[in-house]
Amino acid sequence: MFLGTSAGVPTRDRSLSSMALIWKGEVILFDAGEGTQHNMLKAGISPMKVTKVFITHLHGDHILGLPGLIMTMDLLGREEPLMVYGPKGLNAFLSCLLPTIYEDSVDFRVESAEIAERGLVVEEKDYRVFAARSLHSVEAWAFKFEEKDRPGKFNEAAAKRLGVPPGPLRTALTRGTPVTVRGRTIEPRDVVGPPRPGFKMVYTGDTAFSEEIVELSRGVDLLVHEATFESSKADSARKVMHSVSRDAAKVASMAGVKQLILTHVSARYQDVNTILKEAKEEFNGVKVAKDLMELEIE
Amino acid sequence: MFLGTSAGVPTRDRSLSSMALIWKGEVILFDAGEGTQHNMLKAGISPMKVTKVFITHLHGDHILGLPGLIMTMDLLGREEPLMVYGPKGLNAFLSCLLPTIYEDSVDFRVESAEIAERGLVVEEKDYRVFAARSLHSVEAWAFKFEEKDRPGKFNEAAAKRLGVPPGPLRTALTRGTPVTVRGRTIEPRDVVGPPRPGFKMVYTGDTAFSEEIVELSRGVDLLVHEATFESSKADSARKVMHSVSRDAAKVASMAGVKQLILTHVSARYQDVNTILKEAKEEFNGVKVAKDLMELEIE
Repeated sequence: MFLGTSAGVPTRDRSLSSMALIWKGEVILFDAGEGTQHNMLKAGISPMKVTKVFITHLHGDHILGLPGLIMTMDLLGREEPLMVYGPKGLNAFLSCLLPTIYEDSVDFRVESAEIAERGLVVEEKDYRVFAARSLHSVEAWAFKFEEKDRPGKFNEAAAKRLGVPPGPLRTALTRGTPVTVRGRTIEPRDVVGPPRPGFKMVYTGDTAFSEEIVELSRGVDLLVHEATFESSKADSARKVMHSVSRDAAKVASMAGVKQLILTHVSARYQDVNTILKEAKEEFNGVKVAKDLMELEIE
Repeated sequence: MFLGTSAGVPTRDRSLSSMALIWKGEVILFDAGEGTQHNMLKAGISPMKVTKVFITHLHGDHILGLPGLIMTMDLLGREEPLMVYGPKGLNAFLSCLLPTIYEDSVDFRVESAEIAERGLVVEEKDYRVFAARSLHSVEAWAFKFEEKDRPGKFNEAAAKRLGVPPGPLRTALTRGTPVTVRGRTIEPRDVVGPPRPGFKMVYTGDTAFSEEIVELSRGVDLLVHEATFESSKADSARKVMHSVSRDAAKVASMAGVKQLILTHVSARYQDVNTILKEAKEEFNGVKVAKDLMELEIE
């Protein structure tokens, strides 16, 4: 769910950078620009379900919605801790800001972690989040959300044929342990299909074209890449370390992703047709995000 | 123009506290909760025209829209200085926050002044702004905007009758200086009507019922008073140092104001009929503010 898709300043239609990944009842935010909580309300996403916030960089349009969101969580009586991950300076942002607005003693734990190096940031039971460097004017990180591969399908018919009874033997096989039935060794692959690949997504935040993001995005299902400008602005985009739509499409194409969504569109473009058209020339499976646009994860 | 009329947390219809006074092309903001710049966009108010921001207190729902507004002004190329007035802690808020979002070197001056005592805060050519203490859980100020009395109407017919020719003599009279025409002294009051009272408005921010606000509001044209709760919640309102609708109406009635607008309505009330009805029982000229509601100043 895209909560804000503008760049730098809001427009009437586009609020500031934020995206929510709704993952089995847990809400994971990527960036939290001013107005994030307003668009969460419109989208019907409860602040209480947000477990983690990943901040790509500390420019105001990516972070200034975080304090208000924390304040709202506090007013709503939240007790569960909130984890915030981001670049160097994140701890200072929170520790200097919250006391000045009398939120230094919120009734739940706000834990922030500054990312020190590329690689694994979070590991949960069924997913991991990785960070890689973006190419921006200040320290900035792109994030990859990676669902762990799910076990293969259990082949009921094969198990029956091989005489494996329901119960602990089948459980062992699904967990990858060979078992012996009537003196014969049965391998997991005899009754369990190949592991099914999990959902994988990259969210770039602000960045110029970056090989490192191509690497991070290799084969993902969804690449959410910034495309601040039309391609005619390539020179000025490079100067301010942003992407034009063709940069984003090139990353998608080189990385072989399944789907590309462009976001962080400059407020100057009320009409995004050119941005979309230029990207399509490089990569067909592309859309331009709108506020409150929703994608289903298969 | 009301830019945000909710209390604490936003709702689908009400954003966080902010009001814009559009004064001869100058825009003066009272409070700047998160989303202020979003509603300015909807209202067609340019951030470049804001000259002064008065912050009643540093609770997040009254201040968290300020950094984003400053950032937007900077991105739009503002050069004119911005003055921000508010309670103790305001300077720390800005000086700790702006550097962490890389806005420590904005291309215009942001000057902030912490109010030390009640009384005159700003004097301009045609208006003054005064502060008085609100009764809230943290240091909080109510503000009075007071247009200076305008000179009385010049009585063309009387001047002609008394033989005062157009030119410097008439100018002197309108400035309050007696003149002599054909040996006869003419007093200003002979040709100039009584001064016309300027527009006067009080904006309370968050407060419980307060005698000091009654004093501040004596005879004003417009009182914008918070009314967080219905009157049945008087006890809990007092505990958190907010007003119920009857408190606000009582202030309006005691101070003899012309018009009362209630704002800062708790998110629990989707229907404000009770709040309005209870206030009307004490003071007839009352409305409940809505986001983007506009009042004409006569």
